Amino acid sequence: MRIALGLEYDGAPFCGWQHQPGGCAVQDHLESALSAIAASPVDTVAAGRTDAGVHARAQVVHFDTAVEREEVSWVRGTNSALPAAIRVLWARRVPESFHARFGARSRTYQYLLVDDPVAPGILKAKAGWFHRRLDVAAMHEAARCLVGERDFSAFRDAQCQARSPVRIVHEAKVERVGSLVVATVRANAFLHHMVRNLVGSLVYVGAGRQPATWLAELLDRRDRREAAPTFAPDGLYLSAIEYDPAFGLPAFRPNPLLPSP
Amino acid sequence: MRIALGLEYDGAPFCGWQHQPGGCAVQDHLESALSAIAASPVDTVAAGRTDAGVHARAQVVHFDTAVEREEVSWVRGTNSALPAAIRVLWARRVPESFHARFGARSRTYQYLLVDDPVAPGILKAKAGWFHRRLDVAAMHEAARCLVGERDFSAFRDAQCQARSPVRIVHEAKVERVGSLVVATVRANAFLHHMVRNLVGSLVYVGAGRQPATWLAELLDRRDRREAAPTFAPDGLYLSAIEYDPAFGLPAFRPNPLLPSP
Repeated sequence: MRIALGLEYDGAPFCGWQHQPGGCAVQDHLESALSAIAASPVDTVAAGRTDAGVHARAQVVHFDTAVEREEVSWVRGTNSALPAAIRVLWARRVPESFHARFGARSRTYQYLLVDDPVAPGILKAKAGWFHRRLDVAAMHEAARCLVGERDFSAFRDAQCQARSPVRIVHEAKVERVGSLVVATVRANAFLHHMVRNLVGSLVYVGAGRQPATWLAELLDRRDRREAAPTFAPDGLYLSAIEYDPAFGLPAFRPNPLLPSP
Repeated sequence: MRIALGLEYDGAPFCGWQHQPGGCAVQDHLESALSAIAASPVDTVAAGRTDAGVHARAQVVHFDTAVEREEVSWVRGTNSALPAAIRVLWARRVPESFHARFGARSRTYQYLLVDDPVAPGILKAKAGWFHRRLDVAAMHEAARCLVGERDFSAFRDAQCQARSPVRIVHEAKVERVGSLVVATVRANAFLHHMVRNLVGSLVYVGAGRQPATWLAELLDRRDRREAAPTFAPDGLYLSAIEYDPAFGLPAFRPNPLLPSP
């Protein structure tokens, strides 16, 4: 049978989602915990392969197992075997037609920024940092051009293995939420480092180094070398994954650091 | 001359505010950084001696030095020598009559709680946890009896070195803020573990194990053994220190995790 899990994690202590030989990835810890509960090897597939240091408020994973366990056992048992920075929030039996990665209709990432002369202390590794106040209205205006089916070559890491640089962005916004600047991007899928590269260029606009029209120019020129450097992973959160509502997956709990996407 | 500093820190990596032989305290790191900037030994006095694992959104410290430095140098220079989880937010020259500890008119602590079947992952070590939803109205009602000049023997750690168990509580409230339960207590001063002990007993009320009148009974009986166990340090924040406004100390920046006290 196939089981879907909802996960939350603090990415700082881990080397990203995807399996690494050293076992430092979130996937390594999760598969090790699930295999202990199932008493047999478990392989997982995730909706979003987050980078090292990137957090997940709403990661969705599936795995197949022949073992019968109550949903609550997949939650409590797995949590008891996981590092405290990774939590399974829910488990749900799903039909074989459910696929955490290929069935995801959209993914939402949010980037949290502190724009203050002093870097975050309490929120170290939980928010990105820029040392001057940012013009959020200009950043929001600049982000509008991202919506639609676009070629994101300008914001694609050299290591990106995707066959096509084209992605469909459903929503892109920048707003001030309390004392944080929050950038939200919802798309069918993302290229490697795409959000962190977008945030780097949005910060250039917010700092007045480039006009709000710059992002549209970068998109048109399709040259990664013209855009700003990749921003730090610290403030990036995988915030939502959208599936066919027919699967009836549970909602994720709210995170006090993040506005609901 | 005397300099006041405003500090923010994540308490998780440190063994509390107060100097320890191993050098693991926030005070050790701060004095080492300040001594490097001043090129001579610097001793500091803090408004609140936070325990291991307890955070500060608004710690105030003073020190005396013969060295002339611009205020911005005390901020940037010290930050460049500190661990990233401790940040100096501001520095201000103050008269000799200013004393960070004895001049504090009140201190405000806030306790953040996640009440959910699954423990916090992203907020691990940033919020306390109770595994069931709490009755916040009952907790708030129970907290009302704390206001006034009261004997807090029931909530005083056996290790407490204060001469008197009497403290003046100006404000005590429990409220739901977004997805968090937040307990706020403002008092002239606090006994050792006082807030964590209060939160332990408030959670007994919120969970329905005791009625809202229980805290008043505990206060009257003055017996620590009758109250609930000390709650974890994870969710506790030193959130505000009040001085004579004539000193004109700068405001602290807002923290997105905390409502303004």
